[in-house]
Amino acid sequence: MLQNYSARIQKALKGIKVGDRISITRGSQTYEGLLMPRTEIGDENCIVLKLDNGYNIGVRFEGKIKIEKSKKKESKEIKEEFKFEEGKERIEKLKFDSKKPKISLVSTGGTIVSKVDYRTGGVSALEKPEELLTNIPELKDIAFIEGVKTPFKKMSEDLDSNDWQVLAKIVANELNKNKGVIIAHGTDTMHFTSAALSFMLKNLSKPVVLTGSQRSSDRGSSDAFMNIICSAHTAISEIAEVGICMHATVDDHYCYFIRGTKVRKMHSTRRDAFRSINEMPIAKVWPNGKIDILNKNYKKRNEEKVIADIKFEPKVALLKSYPGSEPEILEFLVKKGYKGFVIEGTGMGHVPTSAVKSWIPANKKLIKDGIPVVIAPQTIYGRINTDVYTNLRILYREAKAIPAEDMLSEVAYVKLGWVLGHTKDLEKVREMMLTNIAGEINGRHELDNFLV
Amino acid sequence: MLQNYSARIQKALKGIKVGDRISITRGSQTYEGLLMPRTEIGDENCIVLKLDNGYNIGVRFEGKIKIEKSKKKESKEIKEEFKFEEGKERIEKLKFDSKKPKISLVSTGGTIVSKVDYRTGGVSALEKPEELLTNIPELKDIAFIEGVKTPFKKMSEDLDSNDWQVLAKIVANELNKNKGVIIAHGTDTMHFTSAALSFMLKNLSKPVVLTGSQRSSDRGSSDAFMNIICSAHTAISEIAEVGICMHATVDDHYCYFIRGTKVRKMHSTRRDAFRSINEMPIAKVWPNGKIDILNKNYKKRNEEKVIADIKFEPKVALLKSYPGSEPEILEFLVKKGYKGFVIEGTGMGHVPTSAVKSWIPANKKLIKDGIPVVIAPQTIYGRINTDVYTNLRILYREAKAIPAEDMLSEVAYVKLGWVLGHTKDLEKVREMMLTNIAGEINGRHELDNFLV
Repeated sequence: MLQNYSARIQKALKGIKVGDRISITRGSQTYEGLLMPRTEIGDENCIVLKLDNGYNIGVRFEGKIKIEKSKKKESKEIKEEFKFEEGKERIEKLKFDSKKPKISLVSTGGTIVSKVDYRTGGVSALEKPEELLTNIPELKDIAFIEGVKTPFKKMSEDLDSNDWQVLAKIVANELNKNKGVIIAHGTDTMHFTSAALSFMLKNLSKPVVLTGSQRSSDRGSSDAFMNIICSAHTAISEIAEVGICMHATVDDHYCYFIRGTKVRKMHSTRRDAFRSINEMPIAKVWPNGKIDILNKNYKKRNEEKVIADIKFEPKVALLKSYPGSEPEILEFLVKKGYKGFVIEGTGMGHVPTSAVKSWIPANKKLIKDGIPVVIAPQTIYGRINTDVYTNLRILYREAKAIPAEDMLSEVAYVKLGWVLGHTKDLEKVREMMLTNIAGEINGRHELDNFLV
Repeated sequence: MLQNYSARIQKALKGIKVGDRISITRGSQTYEGLLMPRTEIGDENCIVLKLDNGYNIGVRFEGKIKIEKSKKKESKEIKEEFKFEEGKERIEKLKFDSKKPKISLVSTGGTIVSKVDYRTGGVSALEKPEELLTNIPELKDIAFIEGVKTPFKKMSEDLDSNDWQVLAKIVANELNKNKGVIIAHGTDTMHFTSAALSFMLKNLSKPVVLTGSQRSSDRGSSDAFMNIICSAHTAISEIAEVGICMHATVDDHYCYFIRGTKVRKMHSTRRDAFRSINEMPIAKVWPNGKIDILNKNYKKRNEEKVIADIKFEPKVALLKSYPGSEPEILEFLVKKGYKGFVIEGTGMGHVPTSAVKSWIPANKKLIKDGIPVVIAPQTIYGRINTDVYTNLRILYREAKAIPAEDMLSEVAYVKLGWVLGHTKDLEKVREMMLTNIAGEINGRHELDNFLV
């Protein structure tokens, strides 16, 4: 396991193995933690330590340096892990109060129901997702949770539209029995799932709160606990929307509840990775239960029966246009049975229009053949504008591309699949894509500045 | 031209045509401006007016409403346009001071060298890009600009790697004669061009400043003037980097100069659309010439001769992975002669790994065939991490995908094309992709939090 470190470091680490607790003294500084393996592409002259706070650091092997096995046998984190191992027993003891508002917890997988293997630094799934609850005694004071539904256990990069359909049916069913639903989910594609549920849950009358964590839930530094607690407060609130409830800042102060069609993972690792795009988050949710509404444009809790409207056409592609990108890919995908396209255009919604690589003739042909082409903003923030430049007018008026307005490309992709599940009629598809169904479109582009 | 408005509005607009100056009084409010055509997808019951400040508004046709032709004949904007029309004559009169530091202005096209057609709302290119200068008398006090080089006139969505090569050669030549270069450029793909120049300009010893505008330069509200002035200050500064100089905020306070490999257009229309990603902007540049360094990690001006190292392999594709995305597209592109791929992975750099749609076998096969697959962060902010999850270890260790570290996917795309222009040897490609060449990589992933 030490083999990737430099020969000098291997020599200095004689008698020590990966996973051992060591201290490194360089000059007046001492660093203590678990020795981690060097990764293939890491600097071979840095020793990687996992500190007690859960973070890894690299210590440069230079100058006068002393390395020894630590005398302190048990770190705080290892204690945490140990406590966690007893989880199964503790689940039995975890008793919720049936007089509290009843909510459902649906676990789909992801870091929030995973734990770290301190020997490799890797993360693997909890055997029983219920273990998550045993570390959050505060939950009992907020809501009554009876067991955990586990339709599947997947890291979110492996989910697809079939999983969204399964999930939508379970969530609709739970909503019609209880006050609200929390969904524990991997963060990678959580914003795709939140968009899918936003379109699939018809007559939504109660909160559907997706949450996850950026650090596994067995770590002291995990964001899982506050995220779950704030999610529970949201799930019993008056906000009848699908949304994501995660840390608003890097500190454990409060969470945002962000609309499921206006949210995107904007950082690979930060706790506050999920950001509200093109509108304010619906609410700031505090761990003590206080909810500050930031965006009054939300549906209120009511008594309607929720229906899972899950028809979905999976043969939709999400493509990017960029300098040098070639439209021949569209033709190939049509031959492979694709029924619709979302293209991330540059700026206000451009695709390359010059010379042989122009996307316009390809788009024209597709639309003539009844296959919709939707253009969404590659800039992420902002809106498609179909009029300002000549190239835009050609693309949207002559070639009849459908502007995604201020929709995220990921949301446009999910929406197009859902719309094509309901109709293949190009004019109906256009109309539905341009109609705000689940908060995904705000206003209209030519009225971008004011509507009086 | 009125035909897209509702019958009721057409009736109310009798005798008025698009482009006429009108006033609309509804209740106690009066709005005055040029009548614009309704766009196809706009609300047919809103009348669109272009106000004197250049913005369009939609006035709802409801309640008691009075519409008349305006008595005031000439708006401020029309006056501006008129002044602009005289530009050609004024170019002759525009005399620069040859004692000032000499910089080059290279115009490639884009909104900054365009003007609005007030009858259609459309934007078209200036006949002579020099006209731009006639509206910025302040420039004479900063630098000596002798004419404008115009290698091409293209909106930036139509540029490709050939244009980058032409531009790099011109810029290298100008740098070796003058103190610095300003490049006027369309904003849509400006961050691709800035990345390309960052890799192509070897031994860079002087500033290369790309700038543009989000509103055409004949408009009173244009951001072009301050952007050009701040760019001129940057071009004579000590910062020997390729970067983008544009508005830092929505107000006309100051600009940011952002490294060419760490910048992305993050809004379709705002003046402060360009944002520094994963590091601080290099500097805050004030219109009065004050430069506040925000990030000391930049190259200082020196006397080295700049060389244009423009070899480039255009057959690189930039693809997105997402729930349901299928890897068969890779095989198709290889058949079409593609030599490398950049894939936007989710989270820390995942691609779908489950069932028949797994990207792992496809990646493995490509790399076995000597074709590099680089994975860049779809989250935009943050970094690829090759170790935390099992799926990541399979992708990066077994399948040998190349992590883009904290590079933007757009930058990884440009870099891979440039690297493949120099070598097709997979191990060399890997090494170059993982080496910081032009500020595109900061640190290393396992040392993300601290390096001590």
